[in-house]
Amino acid sequence: MHFECLAQDGAARLGRLRLRSGEVATPAFMPVGTLGAVKGLSARQLHELGVQMLCANSFHLALRPGLDVIRSHGGLHGFCGYKGCILTDSGGFQAMSLGGRLTNDGTALRLRSPHDGAQVLLDPATVMACQQVLRPDIAMVFDECTAYPADHHTAQASMERSMGWAEHCRAVMQDDDIALFGIVQGGIYPDLRAHSLERLMSMGFEGLAIGGLAVGETAAERLQVLDALCPLMPPHKPRYLMGVGRPLDILEAVRRGVDLFDCVIPSRHARNGQLFTMQGIVRIRNAAHGAARAPVETGCPCPACHDGLSLAFLHHLERNGDPLWVQLATAHNVSFYMRLLLMIRQAIGQGTLEALHRHAREQLETSAPVAY
Amino acid sequence: MHFECLAQDGAARLGRLRLRSGEVATPAFMPVGTLGAVKGLSARQLHELGVQMLCANSFHLALRPGLDVIRSHGGLHGFCGYKGCILTDSGGFQAMSLGGRLTNDGTALRLRSPHDGAQVLLDPATVMACQQVLRPDIAMVFDECTAYPADHHTAQASMERSMGWAEHCRAVMQDDDIALFGIVQGGIYPDLRAHSLERLMSMGFEGLAIGGLAVGETAAERLQVLDALCPLMPPHKPRYLMGVGRPLDILEAVRRGVDLFDCVIPSRHARNGQLFTMQGIVRIRNAAHGAARAPVETGCPCPACHDGLSLAFLHHLERNGDPLWVQLATAHNVSFYMRLLLMIRQAIGQGTLEALHRHAREQLETSAPVAY
Repeated sequence: MHFECLAQDGAARLGRLRLRSGEVATPAFMPVGTLGAVKGLSARQLHELGVQMLCANSFHLALRPGLDVIRSHGGLHGFCGYKGCILTDSGGFQAMSLGGRLTNDGTALRLRSPHDGAQVLLDPATVMACQQVLRPDIAMVFDECTAYPADHHTAQASMERSMGWAEHCRAVMQDDDIALFGIVQGGIYPDLRAHSLERLMSMGFEGLAIGGLAVGETAAERLQVLDALCPLMPPHKPRYLMGVGRPLDILEAVRRGVDLFDCVIPSRHARNGQLFTMQGIVRIRNAAHGAARAPVETGCPCPACHDGLSLAFLHHLERNGDPLWVQLATAHNVSFYMRLLLMIRQAIGQGTLEALHRHAREQLETSAPVAY
Repeated sequence: MHFECLAQDGAARLGRLRLRSGEVATPAFMPVGTLGAVKGLSARQLHELGVQMLCANSFHLALRPGLDVIRSHGGLHGFCGYKGCILTDSGGFQAMSLGGRLTNDGTALRLRSPHDGAQVLLDPATVMACQQVLRPDIAMVFDECTAYPADHHTAQASMERSMGWAEHCRAVMQDDDIALFGIVQGGIYPDLRAHSLERLMSMGFEGLAIGGLAVGETAAERLQVLDALCPLMPPHKPRYLMGVGRPLDILEAVRRGVDLFDCVIPSRHARNGQLFTMQGIVRIRNAAHGAARAPVETGCPCPACHDGLSLAFLHHLERNGDPLWVQLATAHNVSFYMRLLLMIRQAIGQGTLEALHRHAREQLETSAPVAY
């Protein structure tokens, strides 16, 4: 892995990340394909939409289709057909959201398979072995995602455990083809975050992620963590804010120096009938769209907008449960995120990120009705 | 509309159909996009798969999104974004399958909206007015689709009613841009079919369809009707067998001189986990596919096969309810039908249709397990 910072605008960085499967222009957004595919879109379509890196989940993939199947395909790239870069998360977040519990000896998390309720035990060794089968471009250490809210004592104990696990992960994952990222934990406490970062920096990870956010904390708490943490992070390593977020969340984090993002929002919102535009969110189920001839957003290069499909037609597809709705809406939202990140990278290169931020805040915070 | 017969092989015809929106090489298969879209596929994808004509349904479209919406888009092409040729069916088949009843005076069919149970009245004038709003390349007369089984007397009365309605349709539909096809009825009775054809020929339709088949009759009964009817049909007009069918059904009808087909099978089978191949049907839910690295069919140009996606990955998508399954499977099946029809046209041009028929019968009738 090679990371190069090409330009800065304040704390924001324009960069280039070279990985086994290709280059990624940063700041970058990774759509989430938990099971190896962004629901409704093919690998070919992701590429055509300009996606350079996909975020998949090693925990879910180990359950379905299982590691033997992926091993026989030579890894996740061969299985899902995506030729760009892939990052796999380790399952720490899933353990939290699925109600996993620490084992008595504190060395593993125990949780239930969402498919059949079977007991699953996750620890650093198994999670690293799993990711060595998946062979992503970037693997994540196994961590405990501290739930929110957590008092200082709880957050500290949880963070310390994650740091021990990170050491274990680093020790067993020594694969030149797979970059390993450490994950900073510590809840909303700047001192714990700083301590966690220091521990991780001593272990020699290729990149550093900020975990345990986007789990219920307020936007102000999240920004406080970033404000405290980002200035301490080494400038020559990529920084990944996990699970974030909405367009303005991304802009705020980029302004503080974050390079990588992933979030289910563009794909999940699409399935729920919500389309992103530079003028705010379009809710396709709104009856007013049922007769609207305009496309979702003029000038958007996604297939639906490019081909001039009307809001009325999309409303019709969504209303009738046509899977084409999921395809077109997800493609539109992913395309919106790619466009947003391109604008961000251009603004950093031109030193105009603050102007873009002001403009986006005005446009996106007001949810003005769309005019036809 | 202009129809030209370029070559014959026995009774089979290689032809070219020129319509307002383009040319269609015949024999041709129309995928069914009841509501203006083949479920899961965009108009752009249909075009890329080689589809030249789409079959939509005027009854369903009049209910949803309603004619006002389609009128404001300048017709169905503008609404659904498909630039190729479109044929709209008239609703006669839907009236039968949704349990519609003849009104007391015999001038209309009364049925319930599948959406809200509201009463809908269909008669020749309203159905033609509807299709004038949709502006397809080919419109179908409004007919009564005689249910199977029907005794000779019932089939005759129903056919006579349809012939009266056809006259009415022809009288009100005088639009140079929309070709109007008459529909031969008469159940499984050759004498009634011959009489129906004679009546329609005197009315001056641009093409002739064979309706009231694929409604439960045996394959032998269907072929008997075609054997009796096709030799009587005028050679200079296109012949459309409505609602048929499976690959071998199409081959049998082409051998008897049919030019056009539509059927929900490729798209519906895809949604139900069944993929067509030249070696028979692949049932993706079969557990054996869960570990299979082979594509569905080597050499198939559909996105999934072309990109080398494995049966295991497709099995995984279907099992997890990913709408990408519907997209890829429907594209594969539509691509299979396009390939089958291309092979049929080439065979007619080369005088080798009988050899193709024998070969297809051997390959497709045996449901040999797929080997990996």
